[in-house]
Amino acid sequence: MELQELLLSAMNDSVSKTYLQQGSQSKISRNKLVSILLKEKKWPKEGWDDLTIEMLLNELALMDSNNFPSRCGVGEREGRIYSSMVSRRHFRLSHGVGRSGDLGEVQPKAAGSSILSVLTNSLLLDLCRTHVSRSVSDVFLCPTATGLSISLVLLTLAKEKPGAKYVIWPRIDQKSCFKCILTAGLQPLIIEPKLIGEELQTNTDEIERIIADYGTDKILCILATTSCFAPRACDTLEVIGRLCKSHNLFHVVNNAYGLQSGKCAYSISQAAHHGRVDIFVQSTDKNLMVPVGGAIIAGFNKTLVQKIRQNYPGRASSSQFLDVFITLLSMGSNEYTRLLKKRSENYKYLKNRFGALAEKFSEHIIQTPNNQISIGMTLSNIGSNLPESERPAVISKLGSMLFLRSVCGARVVPCDQTVKSIDGYDFQGWGSHCKEYPYPYITAAASIGMETKDVDLFVEKLEECLKKLSKQTEEPENPS
Amino acid sequence: MELQELLLSAMNDSVSKTYLQQGSQSKISRNKLVSILLKEKKWPKEGWDDLTIEMLLNELALMDSNNFPSRCGVGEREGRIYSSMVSRRHFRLSHGVGRSGDLGEVQPKAAGSSILSVLTNSLLLDLCRTHVSRSVSDVFLCPTATGLSISLVLLTLAKEKPGAKYVIWPRIDQKSCFKCILTAGLQPLIIEPKLIGEELQTNTDEIERIIADYGTDKILCILATTSCFAPRACDTLEVIGRLCKSHNLFHVVNNAYGLQSGKCAYSISQAAHHGRVDIFVQSTDKNLMVPVGGAIIAGFNKTLVQKIRQNYPGRASSSQFLDVFITLLSMGSNEYTRLLKKRSENYKYLKNRFGALAEKFSEHIIQTPNNQISIGMTLSNIGSNLPESERPAVISKLGSMLFLRSVCGARVVPCDQTVKSIDGYDFQGWGSHCKEYPYPYITAAASIGMETKDVDLFVEKLEECLKKLSKQTEEPENPS
Amino acid sequence: MELQELLLSAMNDSVSKTYLQQGSQSKISRNKLVSILLKEKKWPKEGWDDLTIEMLLNELALMDSNNFPSRCGVGEREGRIYSSMVSRRHFRLSHGVGRSGDLGEVQPKAAGSSILSVLTNSLLLDLCRTHVSRSVSDVFLCPTATGLSISLVLLTLAKEKPGAKYVIWPRIDQKSCFKCILTAGLQPLIIEPKLIGEELQTNTDEIERIIADYGTDKILCILATTSCFAPRACDTLEVIGRLCKSHNLFHVVNNAYGLQSGKCAYSISQAAHHGRVDIFVQSTDKNLMVPVGGAIIAGFNKTLVQKIRQNYPGRASSSQFLDVFITLLSMGSNEYTRLLKKRSENYKYLKNRFGALAEKFSEHIIQTPNNQISIGMTLSNIGSNLPESERPAVISKLGSMLFLRSVCGARVVPCDQTVKSIDGYDFQGWGSHCKEYPYPYITAAASIGMETKDVDLFVEKLEECLKKLSKQTEEPENPS
Amino acid sequence: MELQELLLSAMNDSVSKTYLQQGSQSKISRNKLVSILLKEKKWPKEGWDDLTIEMLLNELALMDSNNFPSRCGVGEREGRIYSSMVSRRHFRLSHGVGRSGDLGEVQPKAAGSSILSVLTNSLLLDLCRTHVSRSVSDVFLCPTATGLSISLVLLTLAKEKPGAKYVIWPRIDQKSCFKCILTAGLQPLIIEPKLIGEELQTNTDEIERIIADYGTDKILCILATTSCFAPRACDTLEVIGRLCKSHNLFHVVNNAYGLQSGKCAYSISQAAHHGRVDIFVQSTDKNLMVPVGGAIIAGFNKTLVQKIRQNYPGRASSSQFLDVFITLLSMGSNEYTRLLKKRSENYKYLKNRFGALAEKFSEHIIQTPNNQISIGMTLSNIGSNLPESERPAVISKLGSMLFLRSVCGARVVPCDQTVKSIDGYDFQGWGSHCKEYPYPYITAAASIGMETKDVDLFVEKLEECLKKLSKQTEEPENPS
Repeated sequence: MELQELLLSAMNDSVSKTYLQQGSQSKISRNKLVSILLKEKKWPKEGWDDLTIEMLLNELALMDSNNFPSRCGVGEREGRIYSSMVSRRHFRLSHGVGRSGDLGEVQPKAAGSSILSVLTNSLLLDLCRTHVSRSVSDVFLCPTATGLSISLVLLTLAKEKPGAKYVIWPRIDQKSCFKCILTAGLQPLIIEPKLIGEELQTNTDEIERIIADYGTDKILCILATTSCFAPRACDTLEVIGRLCKSHNLFHVVNNAYGLQSGKCAYSISQAAHHGRVDIFVQSTDKNLMVPVGGAIIAGFNKTLVQKIRQNYPGRASSSQFLDVFITLLSMGSNEYTRLLKKRSENYKYLKNRFGALAEKFSEHIIQTPNNQISIGMTLSNIGSNLPESERPAVISKLGSMLFLRSVCGARVVPCDQTVKSIDGYDFQGWGSHCKEYPYPYITAAASIGMETKDVDLFVEKLEECLKKLSKQTEEPENPS
Repeated sequence: MELQELLLSAMNDSVSKTYLQQGSQSKISRNKLVSILLKEKKWPKEGWDDLTIEMLLNELALMDSNNFPSRCGVGEREGRIYSSMVSRRHFRLSHGVGRSGDLGEVQPKAAGSSILSVLTNSLLLDLCRTHVSRSVSDVFLCPTATGLSISLVLLTLAKEKPGAKYVIWPRIDQKSCFKCILTAGLQPLIIEPKLIGEELQTNTDEIERIIADYGTDKILCILATTSCFAPRACDTLEVIGRLCKSHNLFHVVNNAYGLQSGKCAYSISQAAHHGRVDIFVQSTDKNLMVPVGGAIIAGFNKTLVQKIRQNYPGRASSSQFLDVFITLLSMGSNEYTRLLKKRSENYKYLKNRFGALAEKFSEHIIQTPNNQISIGMTLSNIGSNLPESERPAVISKLGSMLFLRSVCGARVVPCDQTVKSIDGYDFQGWGSHCKEYPYPYITAAASIGMETKDVDLFVEKLEECLKKLSKQTEEPENPS
Repeated sequence: MELQELLLSAMNDSVSKTYLQQGSQSKISRNKLVSILLKEKKWPKEGWDDLTIEMLLNELALMDSNNFPSRCGVGEREGRIYSSMVSRRHFRLSHGVGRSGDLGEVQPKAAGSSILSVLTNSLLLDLCRTHVSRSVSDVFLCPTATGLSISLVLLTLAKEKPGAKYVIWPRIDQKSCFKCILTAGLQPLIIEPKLIGEELQTNTDEIERIIADYGTDKILCILATTSCFAPRACDTLEVIGRLCKSHNLFHVVNNAYGLQSGKCAYSISQAAHHGRVDIFVQSTDKNLMVPVGGAIIAGFNKTLVQKIRQNYPGRASSSQFLDVFITLLSMGSNEYTRLLKKRSENYKYLKNRFGALAEKFSEHIIQTPNNQISIGMTLSNIGSNLPESERPAVISKLGSMLFLRSVCGARVVPCDQTVKSIDGYDFQGWGSHCKEYPYPYITAAASIGMETKDVDLFVEKLEECLKKLSKQTEEPENPS
Repeated sequence: MELQELLLSAMNDSVSKTYLQQGSQSKISRNKLVSILLKEKKWPKEGWDDLTIEMLLNELALMDSNNFPSRCGVGEREGRIYSSMVSRRHFRLSHGVGRSGDLGEVQPKAAGSSILSVLTNSLLLDLCRTHVSRSVSDVFLCPTATGLSISLVLLTLAKEKPGAKYVIWPRIDQKSCFKCILTAGLQPLIIEPKLIGEELQTNTDEIERIIADYGTDKILCILATTSCFAPRACDTLEVIGRLCKSHNLFHVVNNAYGLQSGKCAYSISQAAHHGRVDIFVQSTDKNLMVPVGGAIIAGFNKTLVQKIRQNYPGRASSSQFLDVFITLLSMGSNEYTRLLKKRSENYKYLKNRFGALAEKFSEHIIQTPNNQISIGMTLSNIGSNLPESERPAVISKLGSMLFLRSVCGARVVPCDQTVKSIDGYDFQGWGSHCKEYPYPYITAAASIGMETKDVDLFVEKLEECLKKLSKQTEEPENPS
């Protein structure tokens, strides 16, 4: 007999039937939520309460062998956990997910953890199909952050196309976007952007030229990027996708925090439809508000996605699965849609308030129609009375002044054309995505979970700093 | 004024000084534990209580920007956590560890998480120096399980020695030990073992031959293994280490669950002393009783360890750091020593009881003096009256019978010489580490955290199954 | 050196000063919240986040002797906790609050628990002064629910006025309101209400008559009630207060869930100002949304409040203090004000929607201008075609039909004048606060924490039931 | 379909039947534990793991109306909880236990909480029957500490025997033991003890004299005490029980921490068998290692126990039920027996080591054969060279010196015959249970949960203090 029935029958003589029916009803309606989830494998529209989520997680834990009441363990890995604090934070799941053969494979000793992994991937597939494209064919949560996840993708592609060691990479100045190519033992072919108006766009002519130069046999893929800091634009994926299709190159998209942006999602969808997108990768923390540590690897080619999953050697932590699973269930898809809408509104609000501030200081918002997340404002007048060599230091200072005022995430780019070297590759003007951007600037982004008061506070603090800084070309701030 | 002082002074008029001094003393003595930890960066001898550990973790959380009370976030990654259940399980740390440049690098936005990472690595260094070798020069926690961690090591080595694509690999039949080579895009050179008595030992002559054949320029490294299932022995690391030294090859040791075994540790230490060991990798879950998901990458060459850390592209989850940090502090090094001693005793106890059982069924314990963790017992008599073709199925059944009786981790190997193919490589006799082992057998291991009653229960259940099985060659068990 | 400083200095060489200043700032600003709380002992306007609350509770736990790291216990009560699950839910506080001499007294062995108790009472004093009357002189949390708390009040009063054993009690049909008199070994003098319009009001003439009859020496106090189910009104406290003052009787007010109602609070305040109120008692769960188990005992006479506290024999659980403390800090006083406003709006909304529904079924809302929490609707037409003897059963059925539809808290009163006996006292018409109320009715209340959708759902379900019921006078519902 | 079945069937195609059977088995075996508990209502011999306990508590929470998924609340008490931290610590149970009619009554709105209460009381009944007497007829957990619980008992008895206002009370110098009589509005008749050898024993002759003096009609009960600090002995319950029987007086036993002592339990059992015991009351924290706040009210007269339960006015906190329920299940009765045995051994060990220390300082252990918990050692030589008037201060100092060294629970009694007044009653020699005990002394107790190292540490610290103190009659210690 089941637990709920046991309890009900135990109370039969002391509580009236009506009341017990209700208690039972409560359990039934929760079981029903689980039942629908298991059957449809879709992201529930309405979020679940924590009690229901914990009930399910406890049930899963019971199915893992480390929680069998009378088990005896004589293996080398028995899921023993020393600290009860650690055990508790993992809801007593300890076997991780996957097997040596495949990250998606079921572990016999850990049926509960396996269900957790299968369901999480199903929810993510539903999410990607709804918010990116109906044609997405497979998805899985890779329990490593975006950088290493892209390396894993590239390593798998490399096995598919032996001899091809080049990766065409439209420059984006975030170090791990670049490093993930090197980690995989491949060689980047860096494509500098074109300046169109004030926006930095993909130089597709240059890409075509490079393909011709190196030959399609030697080129593994194009690794394009959607989400990025202004004034860089989302890469022109559709054109790139067509190139990849016609030249038979893999097309990998670094969609780091683009899942939250309709613009980025639409680009991917169109590129896949009219050309080719093999894999697109996005961060779980930046798009789903969980702690750092996971990426969603998705694709339009089921076999390829599966090969990546199989290329993952050995088991992996189930911690990221827990975070994503709990969050998706707790949130519900309706709330996610609401959060995306709110983000989009915040973007507009930020643009307006930022713009008004810019005007006050005789600066302006950089026009970047193809970047719907990050916004840049010129910093042409800071230290404009100083010798050119002293300006970058003054401009850079704005960043730490803001941080000291609890403003996080604003990026100040002095655009001083100094050269940064990464693993032997030199980048002039590092930080600005190009060798020589015409003005120094500051960026701010509207990302998921942001609140309107973040914008208000930012604009207020920035104004305070800009005022202070315009005085300080005379006298320096005293570090308190 | 500090919190504790505030509280004390608030009570000054109502509680006598003596009592408050004690309350204050309690805080001071806890702070002192932290102070010593920060200063000495050594694993404390005595374990801490949970209250002290949580106190420290809360303090760390306060230093991460996502917990600043009045912060405003305008970046693309602000450490926002949607679900309070998720936030709580990470002690409100959300920024992960590392930066794009280096897994060990400090994150300005997350000073608390950074301290967590630095301290965890320090404790692990102390552990490795105490339990493996004083000469270990650097160590870090890699937040991926052993398989992917070894891939990352190999990828880094490959960048150090371009053109070398071969990995010499004394065969060990655990899939992810093999796959990690392929994932890294390298090619294995498989060394079959020699049968010495009943033990499978490293065929070092064959290794020498292969080195001569392929040439040292083409060979990246030897990837040896310590901990393994009987009847395979721990590789003869000292000889391999000498070969690596003389031929200038990298020597990587897969020490998966060998940290808990004095024998494995000693082998590494000797090989490093008399020859060369560059890197040895071990699982956190198997050696430290935390959930699956991390590996300890350690080495005798500080620069190389650092290069691996720097080769990790991007940030990583801090979840594994939390698990290891909490566990090490909670356990204390004295308790770890006690656990290792207990494991060693259990190994002997298991061997005795297992041996006595073997005798009853006219089997014997396989002599494997160079494997101090796993023990094998022959299964020569199961189904010995059946046609040869039917025996493997009967023998294999023993495994599921045991699992059905809650025995986990026992491995039944029918030794039927069938061939398994992994990514194009064929392995005859897969599961037994060699092409043709003379008898079928079952293995059991004494690993850390095992209790004496696990052994008792195992022997009892095994006896039950063996009896049932000897009858069943007549009539089959009814699956209930 | 303090923990925070230790951590900061440990990182000094690896993180820039700016960043660490921020981490430190975060701790300082949290400490400041605590500092202000300790100094002003006022309810903070803005709620605290959980991290800050837990930080404070951990700090308090450290001051209790059961958490001293090297303590040795040789007493009969050492605060040992067997289960870590239990320890954790009490934030490791185990010594309870109070001492044998006084519930408010400080425990030397438990300075942390003592601070918890002192602060909680301070916050409650601030709350009562703000929301009831500036003249409230003392308040404490009694860790027993309202019933037993009132008994404790009466027992203390009885010691102050030996020989006086009668308690004048304007009838209110909630059993524990009556039982608390009997538990204290006192004798109730029951005052039946007057029907004014449709409202049941205090019969103050009768009270005066009773006082004259029994004599003030024999009468201990008047125990009046504010919050109650319609159609009973809040007692006319001002008149009662004047009577108590002129006859020198104690005036105790059962303000069970009246703290949330401006009307009830104002009555108490006016009665204290123009006449006399000694003590008023209210539930923590009903007013502050914590689990059942505590009451706030407040008074306008500091000495008397103190005597009650001293009359509490022995120690008490700190669990209720934890609940109230956490809740008040988490909520902040601004949020409480907002919740009260919302409650008041819900009351109006409920009245409107309830009224519209009444009209549909040819019923009406009972006019009770002196009850601003509970609303009654007549049920004159249910079963009106049935014989009088069968009607009560049909009407009562409405209650269980609603519960079956997850409607909680609606009370259906058939008003059938049957007699209920409690400990030898007979109450005709029990449930309706009077012997013979003219119609059967149903009540619903707008209490704190209610949401608008509760009202909507209630009205919808009630309509559904009423429809079903009006049919059922023909054919009965099938209990599923 | 049930949750577990749903999960199993969802995995049917991906995991082999054998493995799933095990997962299911794990759930079944846990359900079986619950099933046996519900059926037998006995304390399980083996403790449960936390996962099983939480599983059951979650299931109970689901049955309480505040957790119904689609409920709408229109009452005055809806179990709403504001803070998720508070909700979580109560496992989402918020309705408390009991109803206005009876603390043991079932709440329709809270079937889960009701089951919690019923089961907890069943386990306690089993415990009392096993460890006190088979004849115990009823037991309940009273969610107030011992003092108020005894008051509640006395108040109920007083209603049973109107006119009887005296309570015969063999003196015990713990304030709340005395206050609980006054709180109930009753009058104590204090019986000073007899000094037999060095032990303070019940003066039963004096009791007989008092009964004769006051008359049995005026006397409500004898309130005797078992567990107490040496040199007082456990009251001679058997004689008192016979007196109560022959004079028809209620016999109430304050068994505060006596449940853990075979001696106390046996006394109660014999008194009930040969004479009369109506009710015996014991603390939950002191006997079961939970936080302060509850008492176990047990009796040999089912009707009387029930009347006490019914006399409790209103609802009560379920927090104490949670603590006791979790602890009993987590512990298991075998472990309790082991803890009692350990306590008894510690008593002997403490006596030996304490005795050896006494000899060193020319003191001796006070002979108290009828106290098997607390042990006294004379302090005849401290300050013996000082004037009599200065000695008490020096002796008292020993207490704070010990506390300063983290020794809790040792009581130092200077025996200076000063008078303490409690509510108008004067006690000469307060602290020593009698007017004039021949020597000053210090006591220590062996209570449940104590560890051998507590004894060692105590003796060591006491020696240190005694040495210091013997010097200090010359020069005073410097308070650091």
